[in-house]
Amino acid sequence: MTEKSPLAPERIPILAPVAGARLAAVASGIKYRDRTDLCLIELAENTAVAGVLTKSSTAAAPVDWCRTALKGRKARAIVVNSGNANAFNGAAGMAAVQRTAASAAALLGCAEREVFVASTGVIGEPLPVDKIEAALAGLHDALISDGWAAAADAILTTDTYPKLATAMAEIDGQGVTINGIAKGSGMIHPNMATMLAFIVTDAAIGAEALQALLSAANERSFNAITVDGDTSTSDVALLCATGQAGHEAISDPDDPRAQGFRAALDKVMIDLAQQIVRDGEGASKFVTISVHGGATDASAKTIALAIANSPLVKTAIAGEDANWGRIVMAVGKSGEPAEREKIAIAIGGHAVAQAGSRVPGYDESPIAEHMKGEEIQIEVDVGVGDGTATVWTCDLTHGYISINADYRS
Amino acid sequence: MTEKSPLAPERIPILAPVAGARLAAVASGIKYRDRTDLCLIELAENTAVAGVLTKSSTAAAPVDWCRTALKGRKARAIVVNSGNANAFNGAAGMAAVQRTAASAAALLGCAEREVFVASTGVIGEPLPVDKIEAALAGLHDALISDGWAAAADAILTTDTYPKLATAMAEIDGQGVTINGIAKGSGMIHPNMATMLAFIVTDAAIGAEALQALLSAANERSFNAITVDGDTSTSDVALLCATGQAGHEAISDPDDPRAQGFRAALDKVMIDLAQQIVRDGEGASKFVTISVHGGATDASAKTIALAIANSPLVKTAIAGEDANWGRIVMAVGKSGEPAEREKIAIAIGGHAVAQAGSRVPGYDESPIAEHMKGEEIQIEVDVGVGDGTATVWTCDLTHGYISINADYRS
Repeated sequence: MTEKSPLAPERIPILAPVAGARLAAVASGIKYRDRTDLCLIELAENTAVAGVLTKSSTAAAPVDWCRTALKGRKARAIVVNSGNANAFNGAAGMAAVQRTAASAAALLGCAEREVFVASTGVIGEPLPVDKIEAALAGLHDALISDGWAAAADAILTTDTYPKLATAMAEIDGQGVTINGIAKGSGMIHPNMATMLAFIVTDAAIGAEALQALLSAANERSFNAITVDGDTSTSDVALLCATGQAGHEAISDPDDPRAQGFRAALDKVMIDLAQQIVRDGEGASKFVTISVHGGATDASAKTIALAIANSPLVKTAIAGEDANWGRIVMAVGKSGEPAEREKIAIAIGGHAVAQAGSRVPGYDESPIAEHMKGEEIQIEVDVGVGDGTATVWTCDLTHGYISINADYRS
Repeated sequence: MTEKSPLAPERIPILAPVAGARLAAVASGIKYRDRTDLCLIELAENTAVAGVLTKSSTAAAPVDWCRTALKGRKARAIVVNSGNANAFNGAAGMAAVQRTAASAAALLGCAEREVFVASTGVIGEPLPVDKIEAALAGLHDALISDGWAAAADAILTTDTYPKLATAMAEIDGQGVTINGIAKGSGMIHPNMATMLAFIVTDAAIGAEALQALLSAANERSFNAITVDGDTSTSDVALLCATGQAGHEAISDPDDPRAQGFRAALDKVMIDLAQQIVRDGEGASKFVTISVHGGATDASAKTIALAIANSPLVKTAIAGEDANWGRIVMAVGKSGEPAEREKIAIAIGGHAVAQAGSRVPGYDESPIAEHMKGEEIQIEVDVGVGDGTATVWTCDLTHGYISINADYRS
């Protein structure tokens, strides 16, 4: 792990146990010696599961496995390794997933399809699945309900800190907990999900309702971040509900009893998503981009992501340069409707452009001052309709180049 | 001008005069003192013109002007300034273009709409049009047929060398010349045209045929390059035919007599487009990406550009790292059809992947050796249909960050 991101949260939260979930992690030697790279999450019987997966056409074998396994709507275990994505490995890749699932299923006494598998790391190198199989029995013996921090460590690649988040809610007066872990850093422009995120709650929520809740929260969290515009082959976010909190089960995502849960789930997922951005490779600034006046919410989001992914916008932010003309460029290239003569832009709450040109008497100094901070806020009104979106990204620095010009070596 | 790109052509071509075209350039002080920043190209009466312009929804005022002027199909002059893009300046921006055109038209005794105007540089700052007006009379007095090199210098911004290309063809046994100049460097992912390119021929070709010829060549040249995936507000490519070569005029783009001309136009435009990539900001490698097996040519091109614009692919190339898994990722994120189990990849002519996984007995050493060179070749077969495309790009280096983190200051 390289030097910690300057945008890292001040403290890493300590996650309390979630009834029905136990975790363990180990250094299995998949790529590096003595680096924790494999974790097992055990889930109680009857745990419901929902998931969002990458839309990449070159998705990794574990993603294919999860897509099928999700149809069963039950999860008893999640096995995650870092150091190798098991992507683009053809039939051998899927065979490796099956062997992993079979080994875990034998240990837990469950069906293979109740074991979810995820991998992150280099693409196109055969996965040393024998190391995973050899480590699983020891992992099973080591399972503890307090294993969240160890599991969060095991799934990291170029991340500089582990990503954990937790929130409480009440259902029928009964307290429920939502715990989540994630990893990110590079190849981050999720398309349906982020790199890897695993969220577990003890709430009792049916799988269909769980899927609806996850998909909705996902649009506002993992699908609203980008580091470099590159979409991973391995994006997976799973939400598991062990149902052990003791309240009567929820089966309708719009059930008013789930209101607090929805808010808590948003909180956990947005927290994890923002932590991923704050650990974006080489990041020195955390950037919030809000677009208003879009033709639709989706159109506003496309425009916000065009700004967030523009190398020229990102390098200007890295250079603390209030070069807002590059925001105009990014709006223009997005391919979405924008009324040039109505566009308004504010940076750090200060208006820089209105009605399609620079504000009269433009004074750059408060904006230049804002650009020196670590938290950058960009607001754009494109003057077409009522669509809005907020996305988060980071700047593009020498650090990103250094990390990615020799990641594999 | 910073240090010359290591990928710069060994020699800059010397362009012979084109009958019916005269040029001049001057330092008018738009942004910098003592830097040539304004050029005038005078064209003979009855010169036909064709153009391709940016599709940006925040296009600059001069682009709007050219769009209208192109309807007249005649050009008598082109006025180009660097240092300020005259983009996002509202009504004042269009007024500045009109004043420029009116001044030039008065000097040349032509209609305002026969004057084409282009600007490149910072977005959102008022254009000091008085400086342009003050300089035009002197420029008009200085017009010479040998002014190509001076004009090519005047339109540069962060370019490290001027971009010129020339080719000859025969029409009806009569030699015709095609001269072109261009500028590029950053904000380069043309959508219909590149940053700025001006091409003049003495061939006699009607405006409609000229437009068809330009649009076709544009798809294979300027619309097949990218530096950073950012599309400029100011992309303009104009092709002017003075008709002074002496052959009978061509009015049909498919006229067999135009065959040699088409090839020569391709040569000039691909040459200029590649020169732009070779001067991409911070570029240390020139990268050719060929995609085969696409559903259509357009689909293959989208995939090729997804690879060409991937920061992770570009940084791997900068780091001379044969990390071809990132190419798999980029194919997957393109949103275009690809048969994962049929994908094949070759680098520098060496197969690295076939049928959806790494080739048996994969030996990285010849690929690692190829990555050390300045010319990188990537071939991808996505296994769907017969669509093909070739695009050119450069790597993403610390130099790009350095240039763009403080371009304005």
